[in-house]
Amino acid sequence: MKLLEAIKQCSFKVDDFIRRLLPDEAKPRELYAASRHLIEAGGKRLRPFLVVQSCIAVGGDASAVLPAAASVELIHNFTLVHDDIMDRDDFRRGVPTVHRIWGVPTAIIAGDLLFSKAFEALLRCAKHISVSPERVVEAARRLAEAVSTIAEGQALDMSLSGRLKEEVVSEEEYYEMIYKKTAALFKVSCEIGSIIGGGSEEQVRALSSYGENIGLAFQMLDDILGVTADEKVLGKPVGSDLREGKCTLIMIHALSNASSSQRAAIMKVYGKSEISVEELKLVVKLLEDLGSISYVLDLAKKHVDSAKKSISILPESGAKRLLMELADFVISRKY
Amino acid sequence: MKLLEAIKQCSFKVDDFIRRLLPDEAKPRELYAASRHLIEAGGKRLRPFLVVQSCIAVGGDASAVLPAAASVELIHNFTLVHDDIMDRDDFRRGVPTVHRIWGVPTAIIAGDLLFSKAFEALLRCAKHISVSPERVVEAARRLAEAVSTIAEGQALDMSLSGRLKEEVVSEEEYYEMIYKKTAALFKVSCEIGSIIGGGSEEQVRALSSYGENIGLAFQMLDDILGVTADEKVLGKPVGSDLREGKCTLIMIHALSNASSSQRAAIMKVYGKSEISVEELKLVVKLLEDLGSISYVLDLAKKHVDSAKKSISILPESGAKRLLMELADFVISRKY
Repeated sequence: MKLLEAIKQCSFKVDDFIRRLLPDEAKPRELYAASRHLIEAGGKRLRPFLVVQSCIAVGGDASAVLPAAASVELIHNFTLVHDDIMDRDDFRRGVPTVHRIWGVPTAIIAGDLLFSKAFEALLRCAKHISVSPERVVEAARRLAEAVSTIAEGQALDMSLSGRLKEEVVSEEEYYEMIYKKTAALFKVSCEIGSIIGGGSEEQVRALSSYGENIGLAFQMLDDILGVTADEKVLGKPVGSDLREGKCTLIMIHALSNASSSQRAAIMKVYGKSEISVEELKLVVKLLEDLGSISYVLDLAKKHVDSAKKSISILPESGAKRLLMELADFVISRKY
Repeated sequence: MKLLEAIKQCSFKVDDFIRRLLPDEAKPRELYAASRHLIEAGGKRLRPFLVVQSCIAVGGDASAVLPAAASVELIHNFTLVHDDIMDRDDFRRGVPTVHRIWGVPTAIIAGDLLFSKAFEALLRCAKHISVSPERVVEAARRLAEAVSTIAEGQALDMSLSGRLKEEVVSEEEYYEMIYKKTAALFKVSCEIGSIIGGGSEEQVRALSSYGENIGLAFQMLDDILGVTADEKVLGKPVGSDLREGKCTLIMIHALSNASSSQRAAIMKVYGKSEISVEELKLVVKLLEDLGSISYVLDLAKKHVDSAKKSISILPESGAKRLLMELADFVISRKY
């Protein structure tokens, strides 16, 4: 099966499971509608796909792991709902954010509900005959730790973005932030899938490393799309990372290689919400001239190569092939 | 051992465990400090006490259940941090609330971190030799469901409080709200303790009913203290439930029994943040004259009786005796 078709097939099953966890008739209606909002608005469902393929790749039963696949998508959306409040973002996936429609209090609870539903879902894996309770406990423990890591990552993201305006942020600090904020959930998705699927310790480690590396590459490409992709494709305003003053590796590279006049030109738009599209385009051109975008893309490619190398030890299978293709997709995608 | 002394002894162990989960040296420092803030400010630790005594009452090992005891306190504090943001409360436990000190974004993440740490803690119970992974999965599943219920309860609380100003709220709606918002966590604390402790289905059901009933009684007394207790004892401004226009059974009873002039007097302060202490005192006197406070206290007493009756099937033990005493304490407490 082609990769995009396989991702789509998987997303149908995951979405169906999530709809039953967050049904239309559940009360309070507003709260459940707010919880479903971003999930229904779109998303590629890459994380659940990783759970399912990691399970199949170690010889596990895809039907046993579906609740776990849903759980990582719920966690992902929980973090989006809360992050949008913190970042004061008005749009995501082409629709107004949850707090814009229902207000901050309901958005906070909607995020909390997605979080608890994620654990309800994951723990249901124990009902499947092929899954031992030991493995479910181990998967749930790792998911809980990953969520703590994501919380640390979001806090780091806020503090680094504030700092970059005045002082140097190192590449190490950037790596720690995106590892925690983004890669940890990709990593744990692969771990959960292979643990529930009955994988050996070596197989779980291999998929864990794969997930971490494509997570890092994914975030790097997100940063690139954040300055180069257009609004329709992105589902949110162009250049919002620049306007919001987000700390990205592109910015770190650009600021440490810029002349003082180039630096001044970048700082004129960085963190300024009211910049024009023309000003934005000039800065994007500058980031390209400084080689900052290709620098980040090259690094992302290296992580994709590491990811593919990590899972070379797995037996050949359709799932392994899809994971190999997915690694390339992560940095070739346009959205 | 005396009840209050037993609660105190238990809280030392729980606090010690929580300190190791949220250590001073953990980074980002601010995030962990924000997460510890309310826990360090006080609290009676009744929920962890319920976990531990429910475990011992069914013959379980207290040391095996300590991580589970910590987990319900972490969940409790997670809900407090997020509720304070939603209710715009400035003080709790005699200190400024988390969002007042660190701002809303950090408070949201601090709550999320407490939530994930709660599951990290609970899942550690599986490390103890006496606890089967099946029981840990079952306990974690119930805790996740309880958190979903609490989220529903917080949403209900917000909508009922808005509605009471204009229309009638029924006692059934009030019961559903406090069951979800408060009693569900007391209930699941007893369930988790008895499940991890190896209790029979009948014992778990008995303790579940006990927990639910003292949870309902606890919230009713909270509502009473909210209008009668003084500020020093309460740790937050007197009459904040009235000022914030909270939906309590006292208010439902008073409004449905008040003459039109009494109703007008109540509505003059209800939901008004700028009321004076004198105006507040007049309304408290009116609530007493209408019999609304004694009405709620009588109902709370009935739930305490039901709670005690529920656990009469348990074998005699020190833990059972403490749980019986705790039921009485819940409605005799002054704070």
